[in-house]
Amino acid sequence: MKDKTDKTIKSDGIHPYMKSMTWKEYASRSEDILIIPIGSTEQHGPHLPLCVDTVLAEEFSLRIADQIHGVMAPPLNYGYKSKPFSGGGPLFPGTIDLNGLTLQLLVQDLIDEFVRDGFRRILLFNAHYENEPFIVEAMDLCSGKYGNELRLWCTNWWDPLSGNVMNLIFDEVPFPGWALEHAAITETSLMMYFKPELVRYPLPAPTEPVKPAFCYKYPVEQGDIPSTGVLSTAASSSAAKGKLIADHVIKNIVNYLEEKKK
Amino acid sequence: MKDKTDKTIKSDGIHPYMKSMTWKEYASRSEDILIIPIGSTEQHGPHLPLCVDTVLAEEFSLRIADQIHGVMAPPLNYGYKSKPFSGGGPLFPGTIDLNGLTLQLLVQDLIDEFVRDGFRRILLFNAHYENEPFIVEAMDLCSGKYGNELRLWCTNWWDPLSGNVMNLIFDEVPFPGWALEHAAITETSLMMYFKPELVRYPLPAPTEPVKPAFCYKYPVEQGDIPSTGVLSTAASSSAAKGKLIADHVIKNIVNYLEEKKK
Amino acid sequence: MKDKTDKTIKSDGIHPYMKSMTWKEYASRSEDILIIPIGSTEQHGPHLPLCVDTVLAEEFSLRIADQIHGVMAPPLNYGYKSKPFSGGGPLFPGTIDLNGLTLQLLVQDLIDEFVRDGFRRILLFNAHYENEPFIVEAMDLCSGKYGNELRLWCTNWWDPLSGNVMNLIFDEVPFPGWALEHAAITETSLMMYFKPELVRYPLPAPTEPVKPAFCYKYPVEQGDIPSTGVLSTAASSSAAKGKLIADHVIKNIVNYLEEKKK
Amino acid sequence: MKDKTDKTIKSDGIHPYMKSMTWKEYASRSEDILIIPIGSTEQHGPHLPLCVDTVLAEEFSLRIADQIHGVMAPPLNYGYKSKPFSGGGPLFPGTIDLNGLTLQLLVQDLIDEFVRDGFRRILLFNAHYENEPFIVEAMDLCSGKYGNELRLWCTNWWDPLSGNVMNLIFDEVPFPGWALEHAAITETSLMMYFKPELVRYPLPAPTEPVKPAFCYKYPVEQGDIPSTGVLSTAASSSAAKGKLIADHVIKNIVNYLEEKKK
Amino acid sequence: MKDKTDKTIKSDGIHPYMKSMTWKEYASRSEDILIIPIGSTEQHGPHLPLCVDTVLAEEFSLRIADQIHGVMAPPLNYGYKSKPFSGGGPLFPGTIDLNGLTLQLLVQDLIDEFVRDGFRRILLFNAHYENEPFIVEAMDLCSGKYGNELRLWCTNWWDPLSGNVMNLIFDEVPFPGWALEHAAITETSLMMYFKPELVRYPLPAPTEPVKPAFCYKYPVEQGDIPSTGVLSTAASSSAAKGKLIADHVIKNIVNYLEEKKK
Amino acid sequence: MKDKTDKTIKSDGIHPYMKSMTWKEYASRSEDILIIPIGSTEQHGPHLPLCVDTVLAEEFSLRIADQIHGVMAPPLNYGYKSKPFSGGGPLFPGTIDLNGLTLQLLVQDLIDEFVRDGFRRILLFNAHYENEPFIVEAMDLCSGKYGNELRLWCTNWWDPLSGNVMNLIFDEVPFPGWALEHAAITETSLMMYFKPELVRYPLPAPTEPVKPAFCYKYPVEQGDIPSTGVLSTAASSSAAKGKLIADHVIKNIVNYLEEKKK
Repeated sequence: MKDKTDKTIKSDGIHPYMKSMTWKEYASRSEDILIIPIGSTEQHGPHLPLCVDTVLAEEFSLRIADQIHGVMAPPLNYGYKSKPFSGGGPLFPGTIDLNGLTLQLLVQDLIDEFVRDGFRRILLFNAHYENEPFIVEAMDLCSGKYGNELRLWCTNWWDPLSGNVMNLIFDEVPFPGWALEHAAITETSLMMYFKPELVRYPLPAPTEPVKPAFCYKYPVEQGDIPSTGVLSTAASSSAAKGKLIADHVIKNIVNYLEEKKK
Repeated sequence: MKDKTDKTIKSDGIHPYMKSMTWKEYASRSEDILIIPIGSTEQHGPHLPLCVDTVLAEEFSLRIADQIHGVMAPPLNYGYKSKPFSGGGPLFPGTIDLNGLTLQLLVQDLIDEFVRDGFRRILLFNAHYENEPFIVEAMDLCSGKYGNELRLWCTNWWDPLSGNVMNLIFDEVPFPGWALEHAAITETSLMMYFKPELVRYPLPAPTEPVKPAFCYKYPVEQGDIPSTGVLSTAASSSAAKGKLIADHVIKNIVNYLEEKKK
Repeated sequence: MKDKTDKTIKSDGIHPYMKSMTWKEYASRSEDILIIPIGSTEQHGPHLPLCVDTVLAEEFSLRIADQIHGVMAPPLNYGYKSKPFSGGGPLFPGTIDLNGLTLQLLVQDLIDEFVRDGFRRILLFNAHYENEPFIVEAMDLCSGKYGNELRLWCTNWWDPLSGNVMNLIFDEVPFPGWALEHAAITETSLMMYFKPELVRYPLPAPTEPVKPAFCYKYPVEQGDIPSTGVLSTAASSSAAKGKLIADHVIKNIVNYLEEKKK
Repeated sequence: MKDKTDKTIKSDGIHPYMKSMTWKEYASRSEDILIIPIGSTEQHGPHLPLCVDTVLAEEFSLRIADQIHGVMAPPLNYGYKSKPFSGGGPLFPGTIDLNGLTLQLLVQDLIDEFVRDGFRRILLFNAHYENEPFIVEAMDLCSGKYGNELRLWCTNWWDPLSGNVMNLIFDEVPFPGWALEHAAITETSLMMYFKPELVRYPLPAPTEPVKPAFCYKYPVEQGDIPSTGVLSTAASSSAAKGKLIADHVIKNIVNYLEEKKK
Repeated sequence: MKDKTDKTIKSDGIHPYMKSMTWKEYASRSEDILIIPIGSTEQHGPHLPLCVDTVLAEEFSLRIADQIHGVMAPPLNYGYKSKPFSGGGPLFPGTIDLNGLTLQLLVQDLIDEFVRDGFRRILLFNAHYENEPFIVEAMDLCSGKYGNELRLWCTNWWDPLSGNVMNLIFDEVPFPGWALEHAAITETSLMMYFKPELVRYPLPAPTEPVKPAFCYKYPVEQGDIPSTGVLSTAASSSAAKGKLIADHVIKNIVNYLEEKKK
Repeated sequence: MKDKTDKTIKSDGIHPYMKSMTWKEYASRSEDILIIPIGSTEQHGPHLPLCVDTVLAEEFSLRIADQIHGVMAPPLNYGYKSKPFSGGGPLFPGTIDLNGLTLQLLVQDLIDEFVRDGFRRILLFNAHYENEPFIVEAMDLCSGKYGNELRLWCTNWWDPLSGNVMNLIFDEVPFPGWALEHAAITETSLMMYFKPELVRYPLPAPTEPVKPAFCYKYPVEQGDIPSTGVLSTAASSSAAKGKLIADHVIKNIVNYLEEKKK
């Protein structure tokens, strides 16, 4: 069996794609770490597609799983509500917002089911800024049921980045904070590295980062943020920067998880 | 822009993949029919991967969307609980079961959001037997909110098959009913047609269909169904039969939807 | 004590009516099988009353309970949402539709409480087509709590019918499938047998079965189904056919349950 | 059509039993007041059956409906959790307790559906002490949706009793309060009047009323209340007292509702 | 450390205010009884502030905790929906009504958390008439989880009052029942005793008690109850009566709890 | 009327305390901005009490309300789950964690009720780091109901601080980020300013800030964070710094809201 989209199948046929496994192949892997990629369907400016967060969640998860002999579950393609100053907010078409409870129940059900299949170590790999609190609520409630039998982790792809790497990436403009790094240098660079065929050129002209209000405000209004949906400049993005981020993040997470396997 | 996995991009760049669109491309399509593929992650015997239902939901949706100038949303990769006599049930590893309420809320949120983006005609395309009642409950509750502004449809891929085509497919063995057609001739043939690289050979040896109990029984027990997870024989499957099914189903649904567009 | 409506009280005073027992009488029966009749309040054409499903659920349950020394709980008088092509749908006055979650919680609470009273074998006896998935969801969630301590079954009254009996019943017209057998030959015959005083004559004139759309469609529209609410012909119904069905179904379920008691 | 259990069918065929109506008969009645009897399945001492509350809810509702040309819906056979000092509490077998949310959702769904069928005046007639707050919560939430279009009432059968009548009933012992009037004089007398065949003799020997703690206490313990389940004496009960209560209550409610119809 | 509002700090620094403790001080108290004051924000006539119920819940709880070496948790400042004939109902501005489910979940979460901190005896001290059923539902569900490990009590401040004391308080007018004692003699007297600076003078002129309908009625209408929001007369209130009530109630509850500590 | 704890009553009797108002006083204020202080009950090291977040929420809200002629609602005394690296996490006694859904429903109910009372501008003033996502979810759902009729804001007390002020506060140690500023310089300084009598001395000895893991990890383990519960040093705290923060934050929020009133 060989999945053509599968870049990580080893010569012994071992690979991380749960989706492509038969149930018996999967059943033999329950001692491994399981990774659930959690993305979203959300506007990412005029140059990136709606699937950016899901693509990033999967591409990172795949590479991490590959290195730790892990299993990658099918991704969640929809996430929690985009907010104006971290994703552009609900007024953009193509931003498909789940209620918090829905995402929470979804993650709870998945954890319950993977535990039932024997997995004891699960990484929830998140690529959509607004998802985190509801993923963590699900983890908290599941952990209350399983206690020490089950180890759960949740990371965002940007969490493990060190200051050194950040300096290399933000060599031309200052880092605007992760909330505003939406459809901007890091996501654009990662897409140029992982899925160049999905990036439209020219990239948007350089802009100043959005200046967020200090408070959440409802109703959300047209004009609160730029009509492009880009919250900080994407100029100075490159596939090389994407690779730099990817390599660094993957290495750090792999090291962390390998430590946990000992 | 060109998504390498995209078999349906027209020369004018029009294609049905919502995931690969920018928000502006997507925004221009709200008069079109939107199709949400709903699959599952579920055991499908020793010869098929866990992603069968999601693959089928997507492959059918894609082709339908392509023909009706529709938009295909990202799929739901997880579905409602597999039952012993329609999918093998919860004891098989790799069968990841959502609670009914979770699936219902998920579908409700998606419908709400696509309506918010201006879509008025949505097809929920299902490929997992057990999903239907919870999809329909979500449709019912959303329809109560939007009334005649919103047209919703839900079909399973097997619903539009006529008796004539069924006779061609079940030329060697009798049709065991759709519940038992799990990992059997129709699903195997469709996978041989859509994703041959994911089918393992040799196919399972011919077997008699499982004889289901006349009632639901809990707890589910090992031994209620064959240890392979195949509920009816997959022998006599072929890519040609897969194509026959696909062409027939797609044509019928396309005709139905074209009628609705008038 | 003697309940005048009670046709099944034995000379030793043993009878299946939970409702008519004192708590002490009931407390002595927890080793027996408990049967919960689940009906609905739903249109059944111009010739049958709204209570058909509840009547059938109770009449079958009573006779089964009588033969297996079981206990019959009070029935659920309201059920899940009627659908156009299995019950006529929500536009008919008199069709009282519970939300799926409501029915599910109701069944969960009942199972929890009967378990608390010591019962370990419970049959959910259903007579309303659309109820099943939400009853089964409740069973699934409860079974997860009680495991092997608790045996749960759910059957519809039509599930145990064999092909032979079906041929005798559908001697004049073809069987249209259970979804369309609404207010038609089987339900009419059963009411003529169980509750002749509730059947209005003449029976509706013969009609062709409704031809259902292959997909669920919302909003439901007037005119999708016949204005009578009869989905298939009720002509050729008779009390004799009702008795035939009843005897056959009851015998099969009694045999099944007696087997389980061993 | 004539339902043998139907004591109230008029010569013109008009009667209050929704369950026995066809959908067309029911559809013609939406200008009338609809009454939903809400009972329970609960221990009622050694002399009364588990169905007391449901029987009382139905018998009162039927007579009221009969006098005001109203429609009586099928009863709710299960109610909210019995408490030790108002019904004996959860430790008695045969006391089947719904969660509050379940009862609330059930009543909400029913109100929604009867409104959808055109009814604008609905009486929730309760006979189980503990049900009230959750019925009222459902009324509150529904009323928020329908505003002045919908008139909702909820009464317990004991609410309309005047001091004069109470003095006649409690002629031998003092009135212990409604919470403790469980399986005691009023309920026993009503059952002797409405359903004498369901009362066991001799009635329990006279007892002092239970002396309730001033606070709710969990866990509920064996021994908190008498092992019979009778909270106040049932001695001095009689069918004549039952008739007295019934006539008085029915008259008061009928007068109240007739006033509302003007 | 000394909280200026703290009237009950002993010379050894022991006091009942959880809010003013550090976590270590609190951690040392888990063998003690924990009291959660549950109030509301609700209209209380022209002479009393919106915080009456919360003030009473806290003032009683504080004094009880002080005498039994207990711990008083921060109060719940909002409660369940005020009803016309027990609090004036929802039409009065300043009456802030939680849904029943919200209050229930809130109390469940608090009980769960105090149990997690090691407390095994918890008193829910209620001062808002309508709260009780939802507090008790929360207690019931939590007790189902913890069983005999956890002792829970719920009392209203008026529950422990004896007939003797009631006669002293209602020396000029008859007792109208607790539901109607809203913003009336008992609450006014207690506020005059506990928080005289929050009472406005002159007190409202004497009025007859409201005569409640015998049934719940929706929609709630202006004019159902007096426009002042006072349901029974507040005349004859006095700080002395307030002290009488307080001393009596506190003594009874303290005695009850001391008995439970043995 | 004069509440002794009320520092902000003007000579005309106008003050911001909703709790101390009668319903008529409150009813006259619905054109004003309403502020809901949202705190928590949570460990704050060996030197601060469990009520820090609630105290800060109230003290800020009071001063802001005072300056803008606003109304301050009673505070929420309990908040969402404390996390190890932003509040010390659930293992500390005294940290009382609500589920996310509970907090969300609570805030939704409050907003609904204040809207019903005529308020159209509501500020949710938060002082507990982990509360924000669930407050915002409630705002989002309510805003969907009320649209442009209702303006909602949510701010944390630390959101409006400018870099200049931050430099003055973190004059001796670097700013560790808001998550780690728990029981540290800012909270300690604010308590020294607002409630000096609740601060214990000596302050904890200087420590390095905790070094958080880059990911969320369950189960939470003892030893993940310092046993004191202090996440960054509280040394260099002072009442003067507290005043500096307070003045600055209050001024910024007042300016923002005054702008909105125009």
